[in-house]
Order: sequence, then C-alpha cells, then structure tokens
Amino acid sequence: MSTRILALCGGVGGAKLAFGFESLLKAKLLDELLITVNTGDDFEHLGLTICPDLDTVTYTLAGMVNTKTGWGRADESAHCMEALRQLGGEDWFYLGDKDLALHLERTRLLKSGWTLTQVSQHFAERLGIHAQIIPMCDEPAPTLVHTTAGVLPFQHYFVRERCEPVLKSLEYGGENTQANPALLEAICGAEDAGLTAIVICPSNPYLSVDPLLALPGVRDGLAKTKVPVIAVSPIVGGQALKGPTAKIMKELGVEVSSQSIAAHYRDFLDCLIIDRGDASESEAVASYVPHIELAATVMRIDQDKLALAGRVLDIAKTLNHIK
Amino acid sequence: MSTRILALCGGVGGAKLAFGFESLLKAKLLDELLITVNTGDDFEHLGLTICPDLDTVTYTLAGMVNTKTGWGRADESAHCMEALRQLGGEDWFYLGDKDLALHLERTRLLKSGWTLTQVSQHFAERLGIHAQIIPMCDEPAPTLVHTTAGVLPFQHYFVRERCEPVLKSLEYGGENTQANPALLEAICGAEDAGLTAIVICPSNPYLSVDPLLALPGVRDGLAKTKVPVIAVSPIVGGQALKGPTAKIMKELGVEVSSQSIAAHYRDFLDCLIIDRGDASESEAVASYVPHIELAATVMRIDQDKLALAGRVLDIAKTLNHIK
Repeated sequence: MSTRILALCGGVGGAKLAFGFESLLKAKLLDELLITVNTGDDFEHLGLTICPDLDTVTYTLAGMVNTKTGWGRADESAHCMEALRQLGGEDWFYLGDKDLALHLERTRLLKSGWTLTQVSQHFAERLGIHAQIIPMCDEPAPTLVHTTAGVLPFQHYFVRERCEPVLKSLEYGGENTQANPALLEAICGAEDAGLTAIVICPSNPYLSVDPLLALPGVRDGLAKTKVPVIAVSPIVGGQALKGPTAKIMKELGVEVSSQSIAAHYRDFLDCLIIDRGDASESEAVASYVPHIELAATVMRIDQDKLALAGRVLDIAKTLNHIK
Repeated sequence: MSTRILALCGGVGGAKLAFGFESLLKAKLLDELLITVNTGDDFEHLGLTICPDLDTVTYTLAGMVNTKTGWGRADESAHCMEALRQLGGEDWFYLGDKDLALHLERTRLLKSGWTLTQVSQHFAERLGIHAQIIPMCDEPAPTLVHTTAGVLPFQHYFVRERCEPVLKSLEYGGENTQANPALLEAICGAEDAGLTAIVICPSNPYLSVDPLLALPGVRDGLAKTKVPVIAVSPIVGGQALKGPTAKIMKELGVEVSSQSIAAHYRDFLDCLIIDRGDASESEAVASYVPHIELAATVMRIDQDKLALAGRVLDIAKTLNHIK
C-alpha cells in the first residue's frame, strides 16, 4: 500500500521534520509528500516579496540551508546588505546575496502573473526537491501581532523588535482568505486519496501553525477527516527548542508543556508525539488526545530528522490499522 | 571670478572626464559642477529600475568604479547572479552583489514617491560626491534601436545582443518628455548664472549624447546660449576608445573621425577638443566649428582625467574672454 503524507509546516523546526520526510521520499520509503507552508510571516520588503517559511523549507529540503541558523543559505555573503547600509537603506532584515536571487525571481514571476503556488513548486523543482511545497494560500494573509507596544506586522515584531514586546494576542490574515485549493482538497479528500496521515510539524503553534488553521475550512476539515492527524510537540523538557515559543506561551498565560500543545490542537488531533524524556507528561497529555507516542524529537543532525520522520510514518501506519 | 561647469554625460567615456571635473571641484579649482546624465539606457529588469549611465558616473566620481571595465563596482562579487541562474532566472544583464543594493534602494525610493533626480542626488551625497548628478529627465525616456534584426530596447541591443545587429537608426524616448528642469534652467539661464562652459563629455554621440539633445528645449538652448559649448571628441586616431561608437558610425554611413563629431554638433558647438595626435584633422574640423583645441584626450589613469578636465576649464575661460 502506498504511503502519502500531508505536512503542515512553519519555519526552522518544522522544516527539519519535513527534511526527514523528503529523505524518506527520495529513498522511496514514502510515495508522496505534500508540504503546506505558513505564509503569515510573508511581507513586502525593499520591493521584494519575502516568504521566510517557504524559503526555509525550500532551502532545508534542497540541502542548501545554513545549518547554524536553520534559515538562509549556507556559504552566504552579505555584500549587498553592506552596500545598502552605505546608501542609507533599510538593513534590519538580513538578506544574503544568494538568497536575494530567490526574492528577486519570485517577485518577478508573481508580477508576471504566476501564483505563489506555481512559483514555490518551480523553485522546488529547480533545486531538485522531490516533495511538493505549496503556500497555505496564494493571496497575502499577514499575521498581525498585538503587543503591549502596539500592533506590529509580523517581521517587525519577530526580527526588528526581536520578539521583545510582550505579546497580547495574534491576528491571522487568512481568516478571510481562501486556503490553497490543493491543501483543502488534500484534507477533505484525504481518505479517498489514500492519505496515510496529516502531520503537524514541530513548529510554533501560535506563530506558524495557527495561521494555517485559521484559513476557512482547514481546522474543520482536520476535525472531520478519518485520516490520522498527528502532531510532533515542539516542547521538550518544558522548553522550546528554538525561537520564541516558550516566551509567547508564558505571555499568553499558557503552561510551557506538551500538555498545552495537546490542548491547543485537541479538537482535531488523533496523536501527539512527545519527546522520550517527557514520558512523565503522558498522562496529562492523555486528557486532550486519544493517542500519545514517544520519540526522539530533538533533531540535531540529518540522521535525527530521518529517524523522527520514519517514526512518524510508522505511527501513522499503525493508527491507520486502528482507526 | 567663480567657475561653473554644466556637463552633459553618458557612461564610461564621459564619466572619466566628469571624474576629472569632480577632482577639480574637490581641490577647489572649480566652484560648481552640475552633471546631467543620459537615461535613454535605463530599463526595468528583474523588477528593478536600472540606470546604467547614472550609476557609472556615480561610481566613477565616488572612486568606487571597477577601473578594468569602467562600469560596475570594484571588488564586486556575483553570488546573487549565480543563484539566479540556478533558479532559471534572467542572467544576461550582469548585476554585482554590491551594485544590486543601489538598484534595490533606487527602486524602493522611486516607488515611495521620490523623483529620479532626488534619488540620484541622495546617492551622490551618501557616497561623498561633491558634484550634483542629475538625470536628463525624471520620466522614462528609453532609446529604441532600429536594427536589421528589428527594433530592440537599448539594453537588449547593447548587452544581450552585444551590439551585433546592424544599426539602421535610433529613436529617442525623450522627444515627448520634459527635460529635467534643472538642466533647462542651467542652459537657458547660463549667462545670468555665470556658467563658465557647457561641456559635452567624450561619450558616444548617438547612444549617449543625442538622447539628451533630443529632449525638448535642449538643442535649441545650446544653440542660443552665449556661454561656450565645448565638446571633447570621443574619436582618437580614427577609432573610438571604448564601446561601439566606431561600429555605429560606420553602420550609419558616417566617417569615423573628429570631423564627423564636429559636423554632428555643428548647430551649437563653439569648440571641439580633439586629440593631440589628430592635429592633422584640424583643418577638416574647422569647417564645422569655430574653435579647435588640441589636448591629450586618452584618459588611462586618474591624472589623465584631471589634466584633461583642467585643460577644458582653461579653454573655457579663454573662450569666455573671446566671446
């Protein structure tokens, strides 16, 4: 029986698991992989359309990512940025020289009438990626961050202000936007298409996954589908492995634990995978989700990513038998 | 008495003389310098507004130019271009990484409502240039090249086709465009403003200077002004020092000589400066222009540029006494 995965994904953390799935796909241990990526972080900057999460996923799957930062390209230079600074231009959002090519070409293609979905697939093909990578929607759906310092566009909060303002709430641009038809089709027709599982990657639930879930039809579709919906918790040992997840959870008055993640996704989640070190949390998590599985969720090297993806696929197969 | 120069300038050749004037200005041997630059070569590429001649003049005067090519920046890299090629983007027009910053920032400023004149002056100030550098006009005025291979936008002819198609005629976009008000004011009010001379730099007459002359009011203004109009011939020893000037002259059926340059500008020119090695041409040139001067017009090193600029200024002062 063929195996098919739909993954919902944000930036750095999610991209690592997506890389694991891509490796399985290339090794023919997985037959199909559709990755839908958050575009709530996207913005116009220097006249370019910048899609940070799409780019992180693309660079990661192409083996081109800067493994130290988790985003941007490896062996990158900043000559353009330095020259821009000299001219008095805006340099608060770092764009490497090689990376710039992606933004230039995407902006050009979008202006010439391509959809963001077409552009993203085109880049994936050019860079030898086997998975399909699509944005959560084709229209802009910018996330707004309500903070004690006022309402900030996402990248102003995330990069320029370094997540320092205290977060009060988040507003997702996609609430009035059509979800990517390919995403809706994958969710609503999941059973008929023989989808093995829908995987919520270990991305920030508030910044990266919720924008996707806010798109009309997505959350409902996940609740209704009979195909297993599996999430990998981004919380390990009461901390977020990367980024501001823990800080944000605290500011929103939510306990930093996998239990909170399970509660956050409880209306549609079939299984939460938590780190082996957090086995003691299993009982608390069980009050929100029918299945709990343990795995090594910390992905430091490529082998970790491949192993976790393999484990998720195994769990998905087992859940298909149970369901 | 203070000395003031208005220079009409194209790219590489003209920029060298402009650099000489800038050096005089910095040394306080010249009091004011307004450089008006051809924008007939400008085009939109990769979503960016590219102004090759403005940039060549700016980089040259800022001491940042690649002295081997005469255009682009020194110590330049092409990481973005290489990445663009990998993505299947358009890479026929070379844009270095540092150089890209200028196009990005100009495009951003233009979109936010600045005029090209404001942008050009802003860059000149940021880069420590003393002269005023302004475009010949603020609106696009693209030169079209009629060739045996059809009508080509300038950069397609010049860069993509490497000037290979045989030129039949040129069509200047500025014929229906308002000249830069600062240029018209400088020409028409030249006498009152105490302008010492109007200098036609040794740029390609057809590709670089004629677009300027085609702007309404410019050619007439030059013919009418009592301030000396002085050109430096771009032809030395029957050859063009740089670029396709000689090839184009042949294709247009014009002899490759300073005599042809004098004839080309005869309706407004007071003095043509030709190379010392071409002294034998003086008599032929004299049938088209009242004054002929000899100078070392080949500018290899900065000292050559400074010396020629000094010589032009001296000639201008002398002509002011005669006129």
